[in-house]
Amino acid sequence: MKKLINDVDDVLAESLDGFAAAHADIVTLGAERKFVRRRTLKAGKVVLISGGGSGHEPLHAGMVGHGMLDAACPGQVFTSPTPDQMLAAAESVDGGAGTLFIVKNYSGDMMNFQMAAEMLTSDNATVIVNDDVAVENSTYTTGRRGVAGTLIVEKIVGAAAERGDALAALKTLGDSINKATASMGVALTSCTVPAAGKPTFQIGADEMEMGVGIHGEPGRRRVKLGSADDIAGELVGSILKDLAMKRGQETILFVNGFGGTPQLELYVMVTAALKVLEGAGVKVARFLTGSYVTSLEMAGCSVSVTAVDPALLALWDAPVHTAVLRWGV
Amino acid sequence: MKKLINDVDDVLAESLDGFAAAHADIVTLGAERKFVRRRTLKAGKVVLISGGGSGHEPLHAGMVGHGMLDAACPGQVFTSPTPDQMLAAAESVDGGAGTLFIVKNYSGDMMNFQMAAEMLTSDNATVIVNDDVAVENSTYTTGRRGVAGTLIVEKIVGAAAERGDALAALKTLGDSINKATASMGVALTSCTVPAAGKPTFQIGADEMEMGVGIHGEPGRRRVKLGSADDIAGELVGSILKDLAMKRGQETILFVNGFGGTPQLELYVMVTAALKVLEGAGVKVARFLTGSYVTSLEMAGCSVSVTAVDPALLALWDAPVHTAVLRWGV
Repeated sequence: MKKLINDVDDVLAESLDGFAAAHADIVTLGAERKFVRRRTLKAGKVVLISGGGSGHEPLHAGMVGHGMLDAACPGQVFTSPTPDQMLAAAESVDGGAGTLFIVKNYSGDMMNFQMAAEMLTSDNATVIVNDDVAVENSTYTTGRRGVAGTLIVEKIVGAAAERGDALAALKTLGDSINKATASMGVALTSCTVPAAGKPTFQIGADEMEMGVGIHGEPGRRRVKLGSADDIAGELVGSILKDLAMKRGQETILFVNGFGGTPQLELYVMVTAALKVLEGAGVKVARFLTGSYVTSLEMAGCSVSVTAVDPALLALWDAPVHTAVLRWGV
Repeated sequence: MKKLINDVDDVLAESLDGFAAAHADIVTLGAERKFVRRRTLKAGKVVLISGGGSGHEPLHAGMVGHGMLDAACPGQVFTSPTPDQMLAAAESVDGGAGTLFIVKNYSGDMMNFQMAAEMLTSDNATVIVNDDVAVENSTYTTGRRGVAGTLIVEKIVGAAAERGDALAALKTLGDSINKATASMGVALTSCTVPAAGKPTFQIGADEMEMGVGIHGEPGRRRVKLGSADDIAGELVGSILKDLAMKRGQETILFVNGFGGTPQLELYVMVTAALKVLEGAGVKVARFLTGSYVTSLEMAGCSVSVTAVDPALLALWDAPVHTAVLRWGV
């Protein structure tokens, strides 16, 4: 295993310390490193809390800040955070207007966030993200998985929370964005969980895992490595089928790197995805390209598409200031 | 070779097309894809032009925009752009106040930018960046190499150009930032140039290349993989020795991923680098962490440190709006 780490047991703590130091202007680290929260809270605002296993950085801690999340709870690598972490985060950022949990659909996360929601005495609701169209049910999931589209849900709902929307409205908005978002990914290599010390899966030198999950879990099938155009054809084709959009529909296109794929290739995928979308008469109104929802150092990418109207676009464009997304402030 | 590409010969063109489409609000692509330039030019401003081989994305095209570069010329992967590209870029963005070229110290880049500078009939000057303290002379270089510190030079000089500084002052400023900046990197794996189709170098499963260049060229020595703390000790130690800073000196700390290293590890390196800097009494006033100056999918990182005073910090903090750096606008 080749990683820039010290002791395997200290990776998460040392990474969180570095993150908190580097972004001390916008975040603080909770006691016992249970959560990352916004430095400056806004009274009377519904708070947004997300979290999940680590190894997907910059998701979720990189989305904490003005106009997005109020707190994020990092579990160990590819392991759900505990209800205790979520409760500590909720109590720390409570603004008196309720708490919205944004949860990727994985069994561990679902169970722990549900326990936290039940233990929390103040108003709360949960948006479950399940944007991955690759497979129904999976290694760690009942139903569809929640993947890179989670970032889009967090951005848009975060903007609505920042302007003062109420809890029920935010829950409805989050559910509707999840429904308007579809994603699918492909892996060219495995990743290695530090504590495991060896690759999560084996894959041939000429193979790819089509429909892979963000923990390296199996997708639809193992096939020969295809061209960027072929891959975009299947990823975007599956997304278009799921969203059943009309011609002329405006969208956000998010080409996400899994951690080991350089930008040079991600932008080739942007070109390839655009061709498929334009062929279907779908318009891309906004782009996001980069490694935002990763699987450690896995090579590969996912494509996410969200169907938007002018109101959703305005929320996407609204000011945001987190470690990785920043505009308008 | 496992890459998200179509034909090897089309990688750069398709990547540039995707980049230009995704960032059409801030950049346009020159004819024959010779350069990427700012969409909105500012008359009477000294223009900043950089460039170099592709494969280091987001450098340099990702630094084009308000408060940074006016144009960037992308060569083929790890190959200098041509004087023809640089002249076309200079003519396209000319604001009547002169041109400053910012060039990483590699023999090919140096020769081609010098030819362009000689052919350009309007006022121009060149800042040569040679921040890499690892080795004196190298595979593609006479003298020290120019690496990740180039981004810091481009940001600070870009801010000064935006406020209206004259060509001579910008040249002096650029030279002084280069002198105040030192970098060093380490590679855990090789990268594969698409046209070559095989790894640039071979490295053992338990080895690292200490002092590696950003094309995978050899550094100081090949040694057993060390801990993050040990690596930071050597990288930052070499930087501190080069810069000979006094206790209490304020700095910018830039932990840069080479393309294949996840953020989880980069922030472990932030923590490790901070320990060394704090031990030397050096203060970190600003942080930048991410894969900004890459070597395709190489695993590893570099650390750059720039000694700053309040005036330089103000230029670092000044508004910038490029594909990857954005604040204040």
